[in-house]
Order: sequence, then C-alpha cells, then structure tokens
Amino acid sequence: MKLTSLQKTAPSVVCPANSHAENFNEQQHNNFDEVKVSAYMSQSYIAVSMNDSVAAIKNNLANILTGDQIPTYLYVIDKDKYLNGLLLMKTLLTSSDELLVSDIMRRDFFSVSPEQSREEVFALLNHCDVDSIPVVEFSKLKGVLRAQDIAELIEDENTQDAHLQGATLPLEVPYMSTSPITLWRKRVVWLLMLFVAEAYTGTVLKAFSDQLESAISLAFFIPLLIGTGGNSGTQITSTLVRAMALGEVSLRNLGAVLKKEISTSFLVALTIGCVGIFRAWILDVGYQVTLVVGLTMMAITVWSAIVSSIIPMVLKRLNIDPAIVSAPFIATFIDGTGLIIYFEIAKLIMTDLA
Amino acid sequence: MKLTSLQKTAPSVVCPANSHAENFNEQQHNNFDEVKVSAYMSQSYIAVSMNDSVAAIKNNLANILTGDQIPTYLYVIDKDKYLNGLLLMKTLLTSSDELLVSDIMRRDFFSVSPEQSREEVFALLNHCDVDSIPVVEFSKLKGVLRAQDIAELIEDENTQDAHLQGATLPLEVPYMSTSPITLWRKRVVWLLMLFVAEAYTGTVLKAFSDQLESAISLAFFIPLLIGTGGNSGTQITSTLVRAMALGEVSLRNLGAVLKKEISTSFLVALTIGCVGIFRAWILDVGYQVTLVVGLTMMAITVWSAIVSSIIPMVLKRLNIDPAIVSAPFIATFIDGTGLIIYFEIAKLIMTDLA
Repeated sequence: MKLTSLQKTAPSVVCPANSHAENFNEQQHNNFDEVKVSAYMSQSYIAVSMNDSVAAIKNNLANILTGDQIPTYLYVIDKDKYLNGLLLMKTLLTSSDELLVSDIMRRDFFSVSPEQSREEVFALLNHCDVDSIPVVEFSKLKGVLRAQDIAELIEDENTQDAHLQGATLPLEVPYMSTSPITLWRKRVVWLLMLFVAEAYTGTVLKAFSDQLESAISLAFFIPLLIGTGGNSGTQITSTLVRAMALGEVSLRNLGAVLKKEISTSFLVALTIGCVGIFRAWILDVGYQVTLVVGLTMMAITVWSAIVSSIIPMVLKRLNIDPAIVSAPFIATFIDGTGLIIYFEIAKLIMTDLA
Repeated sequence: MKLTSLQKTAPSVVCPANSHAENFNEQQHNNFDEVKVSAYMSQSYIAVSMNDSVAAIKNNLANILTGDQIPTYLYVIDKDKYLNGLLLMKTLLTSSDELLVSDIMRRDFFSVSPEQSREEVFALLNHCDVDSIPVVEFSKLKGVLRAQDIAELIEDENTQDAHLQGATLPLEVPYMSTSPITLWRKRVVWLLMLFVAEAYTGTVLKAFSDQLESAISLAFFIPLLIGTGGNSGTQITSTLVRAMALGEVSLRNLGAVLKKEISTSFLVALTIGCVGIFRAWILDVGYQVTLVVGLTMMAITVWSAIVSSIIPMVLKRLNIDPAIVSAPFIATFIDGTGLIIYFEIAKLIMTDLA
C-alpha cells in the first residue's frame, strides 16, 4: 500500500486524534445545535503593542514562536486587550528595523464573536482561505481561531451533519468509546419520533382497507411506491442540505431551487413512471392497477420533490439546522402522504373501488 | 445578526468560493471515487538548495514570500527536484546567518504520493495538525499539499460523502449552477438501481398474498415495520460511515462494532417492540396480529443492526467507499428482507394462515 509513505513521523507533527472530543465534552449539556465559537478559540497568539519596534520583535522571535508553524498575523493589543490592529508576520519580517508596529499594522480585519454558533460561521469559513481570525467581543480580543481550530470546527460541524442526516443525535465521544446505552439513548429519541410519525401510515391503510380488500394487488406496490418517493426526496434534501451548509444556497434562492427541482422531478417522474408500469406489467396485476401504479409513481416523485426542497428552506428560516431533514425524516413524511395519493388515484381510476 | 462582525473585508483574505469545483472538473471523467492527491497539490512552495546560506535566504525573504501566509516549511531540492529535506521556516528565522541549509534542515518527514486517492489520505489528514505535506514520487518533489489544499481536499471528500449518503452521484459544480438535466442524470442512476432492488418487495408480497387476503390488517403495518427497520439501520450506517471516514473505526474493529451494535439493537428492539404492540393494540387488529407486529418489530430491528454494521465494513474491505451505503440503500435492503421476516412470523403465530 502506498500509505506506507506516511510512516516516517516527523517529531513535530502533532496529531491530536481526540482533541475535538474535548470540545464536544465541554458542550455536552447544551443543545447540540448551539456549540459556540468560544469552544474552539485558542489563546495561542502572539500579542504585540503599538509602540513595539520591528527590531525588538525580530530579535525576540525565537521566544515568541511557540510551535513550528509561523502565524500569519500578530495581534496588536493594549494592556486592556483592546484589539488595535493586526500585523502581518510577512510585513514584520520584511520591514526595516526602525519602524514601529503602529506604522505597519493593518486596521481593518475580519473578526467573529465568541457567541456566534458553529453552524453560523461554518459556511463562512469553509470555503474561505482564511488563515486565522480574531475572536472579538466589545472590541477586546478574547482569543484566536487558528487554522487548526478552524479545521476542527469544520470537521465537527461535518460530523454533526453526518449524524443528523442519519437521524441520530451526534456523539460526544468517538464511536469506539461510546457505550451501547449511550448509543441507544442517542438513537431511540429520533426513532420514536419517526415511529410516531410513521404510525400514521397504519391509519391511512386502515381507512382504505375496503379498497385493499377488493384489490389486494394494490398492496404489492406499497413498499415500492413509498420507497421510491422517499429515495428521490432523500436525493434532493441531501444535496440541498450540503449546499446550504456550504453557503451555496440560501433562502433567497427558494424560487430558483423550486424551479430547478420541479423541472428535474418531471424528468425523474417520466423515467420512474415508465419503469413502474413495466414492473406492474411483469407482476401481472391487470391494466387498471398497472395504470394506477404508473401514475402514482409519477405523482409521488413530483410531490416528494416539492416537499424535499421546501422543508430544508423552511427550517433554515426558522433557524433550525436543516441537517435534521434526514433521509428517514423525508421517507416518513412521504410514506404517509404517498399512500393517500396512491389510494386516491386508485379510487379515481378503478371504478369498482369508488 | 452577529454575522455583521464579519463584514469588514481585509483585502488579503482570498475566498475562492468555487476553486474546489475546478478540481472536480479536472476529474469529472474519472470514477467519482478515484480523485487523486495530484488534483489538489500546489506548485506554490519555496525551494532552496542545500548549499544556500541562512543569510542569503533571509535577505531574499521579501521576494520569496508570495502570499501573506508564511509557510511552515521550505523544501530543500536539487536541480533534478530530488527532495533532500525540509527546512522549518522557524529554524531559518532563528538561526545564525553563517549556517548553511544542510546544517539545519530536517531529513525525516511525512510525504504522500500523487497517486494516492483522496479518500485514502482523508482519514489521515483530517485529525492531524499537519500544516503542509510534500507530494513525492520516486524521491522527487512533485508538489505540496498546503494547509488550504488539505482543507479543500477534506471539504470535497465531505461533500462527496454527503452526496453519496443521499444516494446521488456527487455534483461537479456547485448546486446552483447545475442544470435539471445534469441533476436528473446524477440521480436517476441510483434511483433506478434502488427501484430494481425495491421491486423485489412486490414479488415477496405477491408470494404472501394468500396470507394478506385472509388477514388484511397485516397490510396496515407494512410501511411502519419496514420504515422503522430502515430508520434504525440508517442510524447505524451513518454513524459507522462517518467514523470510518475519520479513521476512528477500521476493519479490525469488526468484532467490537458488531458486539456494540447488537447489544444496542437489543435495547432498541425492546423499546420499539413495546411501542409497536401499543400501536397495533390501538388499531384494534386482534391479539394475534398485535403479537406478530411486536415480534416482527424486534426481529427487524436486530436484523437491520446486523446488516447495517456488516455492509459498510465489507465494502471497505472490497476497497469501495463505504459512504455509498446510504439510507436509501439500507432501507431498500431491509424492505425486502423485513417483509419476509414479517410474513414468516405471521405464519408461525397465526395458525389459520399457515
């Protein structure tokens, strides 16, 4: 394996495999959605004063630089930690010795607040080639998000989204150290909520039991129809949720998204409708049921596209992380409503059912 | 909103929103799983020679440093690009002027090969506080993965996993620039594959149509049973797939994972079994069907736990990205097999069905 080329370990390369878990632990009593920037910021930054001279800092570099990495910025603060500006290390290294920090520092800069939520800054940081960001509150420097802190924040947000998309609460510690009891607790909440929502399908089917009894072959297609509806909806939400997390899609795109998704769903509906008719024909269930299956397939596909593109947007609007619209969430929603569509179409087409 | 604190744009902060799309484009004719390190490596590195003096490099810093960030390493290569060593920028800055690069360079270092797949290096890089890595082939320096290249690689792998988990092929360009035809093409492949797999449920139900006809109330619980089985399976795979992507879980943990998941599934099965019995009791379907539903609920939960913990591991073993085991994949698999479990239990319990 080519991986062996990674074997030589330079002593300086620190790999804090579980450091993200510590951040999660600090936060574990909070709502999973409310991890703040303050949980990630570091106190490892180089502070200088406006009146320091370039020569003085340069001569002190060996003491100032703690790790192997050279920070891009030095932070210019006063004795009360008011952040006056940022000084590019590059500017410092290439400036002449007699200059003062105040001559060469930068007075405009990005900053974030320690109270901002991780989700909020994720989309902003994820694409940006930002090396480090000061964390500022009331003009005072509270800490710094270094490159590695930003990477950790992004990784944790991605992990949380991955867990939410699987309809389970995020784990606070790495998987292998999580006990079955904790896993059960993390999962059973969502599972029960989905169960309650899904239980509605029983009510729907009972309501249509007369139709079912007079055409039992309608039952053959129940898993296929609702399954396909759930699958096509899942495709849409997973794409949208990721695009929203990355900041590519926001609420103001709702119209464009709906247009795009409904157009796409017509293409998908045509494809899947034909395949559905073919499947019903193979099962030899008569032309009426075949027609009902084909039409329902198309209707459910379009319906699930509408639902799956609107719900993540609405949640975003309500300030709920759209990542909770997981595949199981969409599938459950489509199951109940899809069955109603199915039997209503059946009642329309199959005259002896109505 | 607190986001306003991010408004001031320092001119040096480059935010190449779509730069990752370019990398994807270069690769779009390849299999989605085979994006290589070479697609991410950069030629922006500082090359020095063994015989350069510290003074010479220091005096030339203003020309050498291209961006604002100060690279952690300089790369010591000869005229044929053989990589002789790495020189810490910090060491350079704090060494006395008369020394040569060969006196202070580091001869042991991490490296990756340009041919390594993105997925392979993802788990290794994700947790590590690695600033930059040389990309080396036959001892020659081919390029460098800088911090921002590593971040981009990680982000793209996360995006691909998010799309695969939604059972859709990854997009090559940002969502808003993707046409409905492309979206259709990306989605319909998986959708049809899932349709074909799911179509099996029709065959199963047709095979059990006698049982269905004699106890139509069995049909009421079909979506609920297979839906819950799919949901509990999805919870497991999504957690496992993420843990595997992060390198927390590997094949050698199979035993431990199975033990953990099966223990958990017994707890979940007990909970969900009770709720299932309660639901059947509310729908007033008789004690036999109620018992069948409760037992099936438990059996399906345990069955889906076994399936969902083994499949991602097996795929990893076959060198297939386990992220393709999406919620729809698991749901489809559980749907068919879950129905068989359901009707076999029904035939055992309900003596008049057998």
